[in-house]
Amino acid sequence: MAAPESAPAASARTTPDATRRSEKSRRAIYDAALGLVAEVGYAKTTVEGIAARAGVGKQTIYRWWSSKADVLLEAFLDLSEQAAREAGQAPYVIPDTGDVAADLRAVLRATVDQLRDPRFEAPSRALAAEGVVNEQLGRVFVAKLLEPSLRLYVDRLRAAQRAGQVRADVDPRIALELFVSPLAQRWLQYTGPISHEYTDTLVDYALNGLAPR
Amino acid sequence: MAAPESAPAASARTTPDATRRSEKSRRAIYDAALGLVAEVGYAKTTVEGIAARAGVGKQTIYRWWSSKADVLLEAFLDLSEQAAREAGQAPYVIPDTGDVAADLRAVLRATVDQLRDPRFEAPSRALAAEGVVNEQLGRVFVAKLLEPSLRLYVDRLRAAQRAGQVRADVDPRIALELFVSPLAQRWLQYTGPISHEYTDTLVDYALNGLAPR
Repeated sequence: MAAPESAPAASARTTPDATRRSEKSRRAIYDAALGLVAEVGYAKTTVEGIAARAGVGKQTIYRWWSSKADVLLEAFLDLSEQAAREAGQAPYVIPDTGDVAADLRAVLRATVDQLRDPRFEAPSRALAAEGVVNEQLGRVFVAKLLEPSLRLYVDRLRAAQRAGQVRADVDPRIALELFVSPLAQRWLQYTGPISHEYTDTLVDYALNGLAPR
Repeated sequence: MAAPESAPAASARTTPDATRRSEKSRRAIYDAALGLVAEVGYAKTTVEGIAARAGVGKQTIYRWWSSKADVLLEAFLDLSEQAAREAGQAPYVIPDTGDVAADLRAVLRATVDQLRDPRFEAPSRALAAEGVVNEQLGRVFVAKLLEPSLRLYVDRLRAAQRAGQVRADVDPRIALELFVSPLAQRWLQYTGPISHEYTDTLVDYALNGLAPR
């Protein structure tokens, strides 16, 4: 983020070295937060524990974040962006090649890969488990981490409606659940294996319907 | 269960009063197990705690069950059967009126009612949360509590395939996820409100597909 015009002094004080040190601390804090929540769960993760593991003072964390939930939230956003970059994808984009089936298959295959990424799996499960029994936290994390992705599906389905590839009368926010939720439930509850073939099948069933045409 | 022919003495010793006392203890243990897991979560629920709350000795629990997971499993099966009886439904049955859309709408509406039942909600959430981070327990509870219900959908969809109402080439075990999983995810992750209108919509989208016909 560019420094605002009104704060030239603060901007001048931030030397390249200080920025590099900050960036290093920030990354150590993210790694510590994700590692700790994966190992001990959300309830037992504390700001003190994150600070100790990251090798920084507690006050360094409180300078940037107001709570452990805030730290974890940003750590997850950062992790998702990293994973997308490494996979050669722009984060927060669903392609629009004009073929809605192909585009949905591609994005769901990428999601399968992310769900199987060990860096992502354990901390995500810890957070999801807490969200099931802690409604307030569940709602915050869904709003910040899940809904932004779901809105991309809404946009892509709206484009498909304009192109005549999806029925004009369907509500895209519900429609997307026909392929997103089965994958989520298999991952969360171990109700079945997840694979590219599986998500391709979901896209076929959802678009074409279970009833004969 | 009828006493086996080879054990007439044991059978004779079980007076109506003893049976009634046993049944009362069993129900107190189920209630204690469900209440405790809802309040403190799965990890902190112990056989000792269940016994104390039920007003029975620990050895009474170990006479009938081998672990807290076993007690909880049976307590949930009992709760689901009770809820079905009270709703005037036979447990473990999906109706077959010949109209697959109507039958799916009916069973999903009943599921919505059960998910909103306060007796069911807190203990179910506690168990589901543990299952997300404890793969072994998650798999056992899915196999014992969830899969038997899912098999009913498989059977109903197979009948619909024979009647020509569902495509012959779909895999019923995947197809059922188009309406079951969205409801499960909304309930587990607070990703949206659940209602009869919502599940009716899922059945429409799943059977007819998102693409225009």
